[in-house]
Amino acid sequence: MSTATFTVVGMTCGHCVSSVTEEVTEVAGVTDVDVDLASGRLTVTSDIDIDETAVVAAVQEAGYQVAT
Amino acid sequence: MSTATFTVVGMTCGHCVSSVTEEVTEVAGVTDVDVDLASGRLTVTSDIDIDETAVVAAVQEAGYQVAT
Repeated sequence: MSTATFTVVGMTCGHCVSSVTEEVTEVAGVTDVDVDLASGRLTVTSDIDIDETAVVAAVQEAGYQVAT
Repeated sequence: MSTATFTVVGMTCGHCVSSVTEEVTEVAGVTDVDVDLASGRLTVTSDIDIDETAVVAAVQEAGYQVAT
């Protein structure tokens, strides 16, 4: 199991959190997604090595950006 | 046909606009709903007299408030 943390920018409300959660949950191997609206912190847990590129793409698909 | 305008407070993003639009569209008689995120202006068009109480309730159901 692996865990990675990202910072998502642009989320303003609970709907945004839901969108990010939904998209990131679809990334291969991901077993848990936690998003904190106030800080933008996205914590991803996976049962395989986390594909960071895929997580960033999923966040973008939801309409937001990962801070670099 | 009648039209009424309300000011919705608390919307922060396009998802909020969608939620308000969806709930207000369900009010009896309503034929068109327009929501402007920046101003919070909600314009409701109905083919019967608009039930303002029902519109306010729909906005609250979506999770927001109508400014009085």
